[in-house]
Amino acid sequence: MKKLDRIIDGIVPADNTAKEKAKARVDSLIKPIGSLGRLEGLAVQLAGITGRANNSFEKKCTVVMSADNGIVEEGVASSPQEITALQTVNMLKGLTGISVFSKAAGSDIKVVDIGIKSDLDYPGLLSRKIKHGTDNMAKGPAMTREEAIASIEVGIELVEELVSEGYTLFGTGEMGIGNTSTSSAVTMVLAGCGEEAIGKGAGLDDNAHAKKKEIIAGAISLNHPDPSDPIDVLSKVGGLDIGGLAGCFLGAAYHRVPIFVDGVISAVSALIACRLNPNVKDYILPSHISMEPAYRIIMKELELRPFLDMDMRLGEGSGCPMGFQVVDMACAMVNNMATFEEIALSDEFLVDIR
Amino acid sequence: MKKLDRIIDGIVPADNTAKEKAKARVDSLIKPIGSLGRLEGLAVQLAGITGRANNSFEKKCTVVMSADNGIVEEGVASSPQEITALQTVNMLKGLTGISVFSKAAGSDIKVVDIGIKSDLDYPGLLSRKIKHGTDNMAKGPAMTREEAIASIEVGIELVEELVSEGYTLFGTGEMGIGNTSTSSAVTMVLAGCGEEAIGKGAGLDDNAHAKKKEIIAGAISLNHPDPSDPIDVLSKVGGLDIGGLAGCFLGAAYHRVPIFVDGVISAVSALIACRLNPNVKDYILPSHISMEPAYRIIMKELELRPFLDMDMRLGEGSGCPMGFQVVDMACAMVNNMATFEEIALSDEFLVDIR
Repeated sequence: MKKLDRIIDGIVPADNTAKEKAKARVDSLIKPIGSLGRLEGLAVQLAGITGRANNSFEKKCTVVMSADNGIVEEGVASSPQEITALQTVNMLKGLTGISVFSKAAGSDIKVVDIGIKSDLDYPGLLSRKIKHGTDNMAKGPAMTREEAIASIEVGIELVEELVSEGYTLFGTGEMGIGNTSTSSAVTMVLAGCGEEAIGKGAGLDDNAHAKKKEIIAGAISLNHPDPSDPIDVLSKVGGLDIGGLAGCFLGAAYHRVPIFVDGVISAVSALIACRLNPNVKDYILPSHISMEPAYRIIMKELELRPFLDMDMRLGEGSGCPMGFQVVDMACAMVNNMATFEEIALSDEFLVDIR
Repeated sequence: MKKLDRIIDGIVPADNTAKEKAKARVDSLIKPIGSLGRLEGLAVQLAGITGRANNSFEKKCTVVMSADNGIVEEGVASSPQEITALQTVNMLKGLTGISVFSKAAGSDIKVVDIGIKSDLDYPGLLSRKIKHGTDNMAKGPAMTREEAIASIEVGIELVEELVSEGYTLFGTGEMGIGNTSTSSAVTMVLAGCGEEAIGKGAGLDDNAHAKKKEIIAGAISLNHPDPSDPIDVLSKVGGLDIGGLAGCFLGAAYHRVPIFVDGVISAVSALIACRLNPNVKDYILPSHISMEPAYRIIMKELELRPFLDMDMRLGEGSGCPMGFQVVDMACAMVNNMATFEEIALSDEFLVDIR
């Protein structure tokens, strides 16, 4: 617990001086003030995160946490549990959504086994297994408090490694059959909402959806997680992938590196991290609007508004590479557009269109 | 007029066989069906446009039409008219929004003088001037019918040239002080709406905004453009930039090349093109939600839903490079993700997560 406490305590708010410097530069560019909208706000946020008005992010990485969930015993998922391991390997083979989008955007992926049920070994897979899948939260806590803390520390340490390798921008993704159930459960407890947070996952029919709602409500009332203690909530009705990603958000905020939310599982992880230290919010960027209902609830909690509206619900971190490209645009604006002052130097006259 | 008629008559609907082939491939990829949302629909649309299920777009270009508008005499714009020429040159110097975003996305720009008031010569500027700015539509028609047709033909011919140079994906942008006034006027006539289509442009105050509404309403009632004749509307209350871009949409549809809408001026140009032949709609892609109120009215008319939500209102085609990147993602999905069948070949077991 010592490491986790040290990281949580070490997360400071964004740098306002750098934000003001970036805002001044953005307002001096040759365009009507505010006309580049949210790219301008993004540029200012990035400055606050890194402490520099001008930024560029060359090494980008989406971290994918793979883990199994005991709750699938109850039939809450439309896909068999073997898919977690199978798709984890396919990801490393370059065959899944996040693999091909990362390549298209010039970014990398790091895939972590933080709790796949089977023993898995594949070139490139980072083995950080806490346990062979969580326990069935319909019958008791998904994991112990110690395991929950260990899962968060996996994310923190991974980000630490990646930062030392020169990565400066992160995305967050996951693979884990059953993880929309755990995400919905954590959202319901932390946001204090009801079963409107429970969606159809990868493709349940109406009957299975009703059953999923019943099982999640039952798991919450059986384990009575404490809404004021995010680690208690994670351990009782969460998952190892969620813990690992919550650690990524904490680690990125601690190292002052921007980090993207993808879908609902990464969003709920961001919510846990923000409940552990609200300063984390300054470091989080939204990518796309996920179709899972809990996603919108969490965006409201975190006051985030996604850049892309794609009706996506794949997970894997698949929206992050598109988010990276939006960041590249914000950086190109700040770094490469001329200012009115620069124009005045080379032209005979200065007309201010502001 | 002969060329224009021939192009309009030659625009055919998208290829349904190619769309079905693309849909079948998208549904066979290793992901839950539909989970990549609008990227899937985009991939299918692109197939319908090109006639091929698999696509990739290497040479991309945003066409920027620059022109002045006589209506600025009435004080409808917050910027001086000289800005049109100044920013056109800055664009070619690589200093404006569209310049830096295009570079970041690996795409090109072609900047066209289709009606700048001053005589302008700069390396890279394509001179296709129809006249030295339009006439003041508050006192009479903005241009003759012949000039309107000529402006459309400039766009058609430019796309023809660019297609022969190997460009396979287009964006549309403009530079022209006063062109939110002409765009609002054309929208009001073609969409049959009122002054809710008139925004504040680059930054008018409330008084100037009220005056802009009065002047536009006056120009429409003075010139009584015929809503059933898009060329009449263009000539009476439109602009040369709008005509040129309408020609780009027609040319792209004729050559079966996808083309992006950026902001309100390019959207109103797309609307004119679609009124000339409704098949054009199949070839149009939306990029981002512009803040100008007429934009949303036109998106409804064209049944388009933008991919990006950035609060941008710069124009110049500045949203198109981000749209290009979304297209790259849709292509990466179709071309590089594995299918269930391919996985079955290399793995011991096939589990279908569909």
